[in-house]
Amino acid sequence: LVVTKRFEVLSIGDELLDGRVTDTNTVRLAHALSAVGAHLSHRATVTDDLDDIVREAGACAGRGTTTCVVSGGLGPTSDDLTAAAFAQLCGVPLQRDATQADKITAMLQGRGRSVSANQLKQADRPRGAQLLNNDQGTAPGFAIEYGGCRFVALPGIPKEFDPMVQDNVVAHLAGAQPVLRRALYCFGLIEAEVDRRLAELSTRFAGVRLQFRVKFPEIHVTLHAPPAAEKNLEEAFEFARGALVEHVYATHAHGEGLARRTLAMCQERQATLAVAESCTGGLLSDLITDVPGCSATYLLGVTAYSNAAKVALLGVSEASLQAHGAVSEPVVQQMAQGVRRSANSTFGLATTGISGPTGGTPDKPVGTVWIALSGPKETQAVCLHLPYGRRAHKEVSASSCLNLLRRHLLQP
Amino acid sequence: LVVTKRFEVLSIGDELLDGRVTDTNTVRLAHALSAVGAHLSHRATVTDDLDDIVREAGACAGRGTTTCVVSGGLGPTSDDLTAAAFAQLCGVPLQRDATQADKITAMLQGRGRSVSANQLKQADRPRGAQLLNNDQGTAPGFAIEYGGCRFVALPGIPKEFDPMVQDNVVAHLAGAQPVLRRALYCFGLIEAEVDRRLAELSTRFAGVRLQFRVKFPEIHVTLHAPPAAEKNLEEAFEFARGALVEHVYATHAHGEGLARRTLAMCQERQATLAVAESCTGGLLSDLITDVPGCSATYLLGVTAYSNAAKVALLGVSEASLQAHGAVSEPVVQQMAQGVRRSANSTFGLATTGISGPTGGTPDKPVGTVWIALSGPKETQAVCLHLPYGRRAHKEVSASSCLNLLRRHLLQP
Repeated sequence: LVVTKRFEVLSIGDELLDGRVTDTNTVRLAHALSAVGAHLSHRATVTDDLDDIVREAGACAGRGTTTCVVSGGLGPTSDDLTAAAFAQLCGVPLQRDATQADKITAMLQGRGRSVSANQLKQADRPRGAQLLNNDQGTAPGFAIEYGGCRFVALPGIPKEFDPMVQDNVVAHLAGAQPVLRRALYCFGLIEAEVDRRLAELSTRFAGVRLQFRVKFPEIHVTLHAPPAAEKNLEEAFEFARGALVEHVYATHAHGEGLARRTLAMCQERQATLAVAESCTGGLLSDLITDVPGCSATYLLGVTAYSNAAKVALLGVSEASLQAHGAVSEPVVQQMAQGVRRSANSTFGLATTGISGPTGGTPDKPVGTVWIALSGPKETQAVCLHLPYGRRAHKEVSASSCLNLLRRHLLQP
Repeated sequence: LVVTKRFEVLSIGDELLDGRVTDTNTVRLAHALSAVGAHLSHRATVTDDLDDIVREAGACAGRGTTTCVVSGGLGPTSDDLTAAAFAQLCGVPLQRDATQADKITAMLQGRGRSVSANQLKQADRPRGAQLLNNDQGTAPGFAIEYGGCRFVALPGIPKEFDPMVQDNVVAHLAGAQPVLRRALYCFGLIEAEVDRRLAELSTRFAGVRLQFRVKFPEIHVTLHAPPAAEKNLEEAFEFARGALVEHVYATHAHGEGLARRTLAMCQERQATLAVAESCTGGLLSDLITDVPGCSATYLLGVTAYSNAAKVALLGVSEASLQAHGAVSEPVVQQMAQGVRRSANSTFGLATTGISGPTGGTPDKPVGTVWIALSGPKETQAVCLHLPYGRRAHKEVSASSCLNLLRRHLLQP
């Protein structure tokens, strides 16, 4: 017996259509579904209007959808109409769940808040619907069948929505279609080049599905396969690793994030780090300090925007600045050496360049960036020529610095 | 004659439903429409499937929609099916526009690229459709009527989509409903509090519409009104300014961005700035250096994560660190004074706190942050108690620092 499954999402809320909120639930739902081999066919977004919700849910079932995730409209206020809409669609009354009402009362009283009639409304569900537990908030979800479709209504708040998708949608599918997953996190290639290098993968390794996600300036590649194709998946993973070579900074075994991976490699070696920034302006330091526990490795960052600060705090020589300019190989090397010396760290990283929009010259156009790594044995510098805008120049330069250190740490 | 207008958006593309891309066009379209008093009633997103596009476009007209903006599916590849779908919906053949085909050929040859059959496919449109000019790319848009609805099909790439929305949707509406706009950019209030303070605005000032946008940690408030209500709009603007008082860091006259506004105020006074960061980890410096031209004002940033760096580079006293800990009023003041001295700047800003997830104590729980401003006359410090996560603690602390300086500069 082959059942064709069709998945949709129905998001409800004025804030999704008036410009206040960008819908990010759909992207995360799509990722969660694709991890178990399922795919969204349609998204509909409607305002907090009872008739519109009822009409769209009916249309969804009419398109042969088997599972529709409904996001939003379950809260306490008068514009939260999801339960009422599904009661109307299914021709059943709303019922208050006494256990749930007690739970809401206990939760609010525990926080020292009073319990209003609106709050208790969150315990109302269409008769016959299954209540879905919400560990993160007061509004439970519910599931109800209509026209051959299972509607799974969940709160739209991401921290409540995501675990409830796992428990009430993915877990059901995972039983039927478990999927294995391998990931390669890459930096240093554009999407078209990753695409070209992996073009034959899907045809060469039967059962393996390939997915890209651009998280600028990184690209994340994921391979999916059913358990029966596990051998093919492992071979495809090795093929992809061979094709992307040194651009793979981490795999599923490590988790994503170039800063996180580089800091973990430093910590394994008990190495410490300091950074001197000019054109990246503090972003490199910001990326490093977004990693929890970074204080074991990261000692000091200096953003030396003025030449005076480069001389006074980093020991850059006035002569080098005059002879070569602030954006030059000697200056970036002295910056990396200087911050390493100041912090007494194992490694020093540095950036100096022209982020734009102004400041370019014929010799050094906007996008010219020098980066350097100074270590116990030597100092190396690399020149980048970037074609982006100011913010992206900062992002690529900061990540290139981390990558320079990562690749150095890979050497025996 | 009153015509009820109904606006929808139909986005087309596998990448919008498989987790690769977050749809941001809808939010920007909603903003563009709301500026001329129009509102989206529905969004549908479908995959690159001819039948699904045709069905959804038909359903859209069936819902009484008068204008539907169609986003995507106009490119050169075989999965770009928007023109074919509307030809089928309207029962007309596809026709190639010779002028447009010549234009595409010239544009590609001008870039030294060959012209493939796929590229010329972008000149195909349903017979009877109006071609819409695209200054930014090779694919023109088109407009076609069906079932009482004007479908305006545009490329999905934001830099092409946005100006074409202005030219082909907003401009048509603007003629009928020109709208005046006033903005207040705020920092330091939660959304619920802004909402409460402005609750009576819409009823008190007829014709004035209020809109919020949360750009964490800022809130942007916009007021819209037709020209006939200009006097009410000005009064509503003054009312809002009075209600939000010192939390308004800029208006439409200045433009958005707390860092941009604060730097502009420094530059007016020919003041210079340096920052010393601990818990914000470089983010404050990153925000400042995202402002083009910041180098006229911004001299130096020091991210002193280790106590040793706080002592050596910022002149914090070992005794203060031992007696009060790194997260304390004396230490944050010495950091601000120290970086100001190092950079020889007019002002020094500093942050030190516990971002989390670990590092909290009963006395100083996660979210405890000291910020300080040191100037020519005095040094002031403020303690924040923040309830968010690591990244948000950094964001609020960095913005609070900028705001401390901004408010100081407002004093006579």
